[in-house]
Amino acid sequence: MLSAEAEALSAAKGKHLSAHQERPFAALRVTNYDRSCLRAGTINTPHGSILTPIFMPVGTQATVKSVSPEELREAGATIILANTYHLMLRPGAQLIAGLGGLHQFMHWDGPILTDSGGFQVFSLGHLRKLNEEGVAFKSHLDGSLHQLTPENVMQIESELGADIILPLDICAAYPCNPKDAQEAMERTHRWAERALIARERYQTEQTLFGIVQGAFEAELRQQSARFTGNLPFPGLSIGGLSVGEPKAVMWEMLQHITPELPSAKPRHLLGVGSPEDFVTGVGLGMDMFDCALPTRVARHGGLFTGYGRINIKSARYRAERGPIEEGCDCYTCRNYSAAYVHHLARTEEQLYYRLGSIHNVRYMLHLAGQMRDAIIAGTYPAFRDTFLARYKPASEEVREDQRKKWKAARAR
Amino acid sequence: MLSAEAEALSAAKGKHLSAHQERPFAALRVTNYDRSCLRAGTINTPHGSILTPIFMPVGTQATVKSVSPEELREAGATIILANTYHLMLRPGAQLIAGLGGLHQFMHWDGPILTDSGGFQVFSLGHLRKLNEEGVAFKSHLDGSLHQLTPENVMQIESELGADIILPLDICAAYPCNPKDAQEAMERTHRWAERALIARERYQTEQTLFGIVQGAFEAELRQQSARFTGNLPFPGLSIGGLSVGEPKAVMWEMLQHITPELPSAKPRHLLGVGSPEDFVTGVGLGMDMFDCALPTRVARHGGLFTGYGRINIKSARYRAERGPIEEGCDCYTCRNYSAAYVHHLARTEEQLYYRLGSIHNVRYMLHLAGQMRDAIIAGTYPAFRDTFLARYKPASEEVREDQRKKWKAARAR
Repeated sequence: MLSAEAEALSAAKGKHLSAHQERPFAALRVTNYDRSCLRAGTINTPHGSILTPIFMPVGTQATVKSVSPEELREAGATIILANTYHLMLRPGAQLIAGLGGLHQFMHWDGPILTDSGGFQVFSLGHLRKLNEEGVAFKSHLDGSLHQLTPENVMQIESELGADIILPLDICAAYPCNPKDAQEAMERTHRWAERALIARERYQTEQTLFGIVQGAFEAELRQQSARFTGNLPFPGLSIGGLSVGEPKAVMWEMLQHITPELPSAKPRHLLGVGSPEDFVTGVGLGMDMFDCALPTRVARHGGLFTGYGRINIKSARYRAERGPIEEGCDCYTCRNYSAAYVHHLARTEEQLYYRLGSIHNVRYMLHLAGQMRDAIIAGTYPAFRDTFLARYKPASEEVREDQRKKWKAARAR
Repeated sequence: MLSAEAEALSAAKGKHLSAHQERPFAALRVTNYDRSCLRAGTINTPHGSILTPIFMPVGTQATVKSVSPEELREAGATIILANTYHLMLRPGAQLIAGLGGLHQFMHWDGPILTDSGGFQVFSLGHLRKLNEEGVAFKSHLDGSLHQLTPENVMQIESELGADIILPLDICAAYPCNPKDAQEAMERTHRWAERALIARERYQTEQTLFGIVQGAFEAELRQQSARFTGNLPFPGLSIGGLSVGEPKAVMWEMLQHITPELPSAKPRHLLGVGSPEDFVTGVGLGMDMFDCALPTRVARHGGLFTGYGRINIKSARYRAERGPIEEGCDCYTCRNYSAAYVHHLARTEEQLYYRLGSIHNVRYMLHLAGQMRDAIIAGTYPAFRDTFLARYKPASEEVREDQRKKWKAARAR
């Protein structure tokens, strides 16, 4: 259906936003393999290169839950995400800066992306005041009062020291009326401009991505994509999706966004997702994905295979001497029977959480490599169709059930 | 004070108990470095050699909690212990046998020791009937009824396939009246003889140790040491200590036992212990130690240093850029600041349990190596005195407090 182009169609370097900078921004290069959608690229950062499409494991509190940096590396991770909201509250951005920054703090020498904290303020924090200046909130940990502004988020993320950083934005809820959606988007745009100015103060090698908002209004999404895409951001994150809307709505929105985006800038779909969403999102022109789902479902027994998510706690694995998935090259599948992983999961042994998480992280990154190869070989559409035909996603019922369990676990 | 003897004073090989065996038992050799106490030895098993004195990390459910086999190996572990009681109930000894035995099941190719299950029947199970035949109990997991006899324990441990196995014994409680102590000891002796006969049925390379009992009666302890020491067991475990008695009582009992033991057989002090108990026990002629304490206290924030156990959750480590202990060569100390370990412990991140456990396991095994070197160099007494003068043990109050916490955690 789509043929790969042999050579890069375009290459773009991150623009210098500051005369103070001694070294260039991360150099970003994306290759479009057809005029609309399929892309494979390379993102160079001070901590190494990232081949896209890529999945970024989430290390909320400066650790990808239960997995060590060496294990992430072995699983093929080339970039991870950490959450500014959690880290600014505990242990604090200044403390991390004093210890040499996030990379040194968590012993991960590859690229890191930090979000702006905005999403968690709205979802986890107790909101106190949202105005043009910024957002004030109470910590979900101890009720202490904090404020985020486009300016101080640049300072906090500079202290954390990630390679790619995001500006403060407003993530509208789903559903959202058009007026609120527009106001949130316009404020996000004004905050984006303030962030671009504010970051000039920090002499770092960090790359600031812009964030596209616009809730679930096609026109707003197009408008936000054009506006943010034209600002001097070397990359773009798509925010405000995967917040509870049906998946069809998410994909529809994305199809309004991508045609408006400059093709040479990396595109990051925030908070997505599952294996099937990863494959679908790549087909719709996205380069970077992050989600806690692969490690979170692993901890609850859900492990990815080519046929869908299995529940390793199921009695069917009790005596299974083969690995979780035949042919999988992850540490877990190379060294342990499904029966042993089942035993550890049933007995709630801590080693289980690690073995399960490693398997799912490796699954996502293996998938990333397969998609890249398919894109370059011009066979991605067939790959996608075969994958989606084989892979049985968790049903909405199971998903809802899991959401409740996680919510209950968090409330404890 | 004590001079090392340059050459081995004695060497003993495990006796062949069975004409059916195609390969010899584990070859056991112990060198006494003085006539009464200090010993350094080598224990050869089908899965490798163990230099003594040695600490054996405890992998209750076929996993040393939160630590992988590769990490155990890197920390210097040469033998681990697994619990027959837990494994026979879940996932079941036959299932493990069907999957190739414990080594293959848990991906640990070094030596393993399994206990007999007796201790847990008395401490965890709901006892139903204890008579000459054996012991019937209800599982603490699901109330199902099980029986252990000297004979079927040999079968179960044969199925598990550890390198060193223990026979069913009766561990008297503390305190215990002399009559009950004597009855328990005498029955343990009769069971030992039955175990020696029963194991003939299994054509394995397993080495069966005998167990010395006798509660807290000096004469019984001497009697049991002589009786058990004279049976054709290639090694001896000292049972029934560290069950709640004051430490002085434990050491006193040990001093009644050791002179009666054949010097050429390895001596295993069951369920001991802390760093200070390890050092003291070696000085009293013990070769092998096992205890869940190092990994258990690690999970609660207690990490070993040369000056005693610290609480990594303490605010004093919040910004500590150095490792948990300067000079420690464990994975954790080589790669992470105390501040990061503190952060993980405070946020209850799963990686913490691993990093803390690795540190404490490495601490015990580094200590084992130091003691062996000191014994061979003839400097152990000075080493011990310096160590004990520096190392501040957890106070009885802290210990009691922790016991309550663990009990409460288990009840949840």
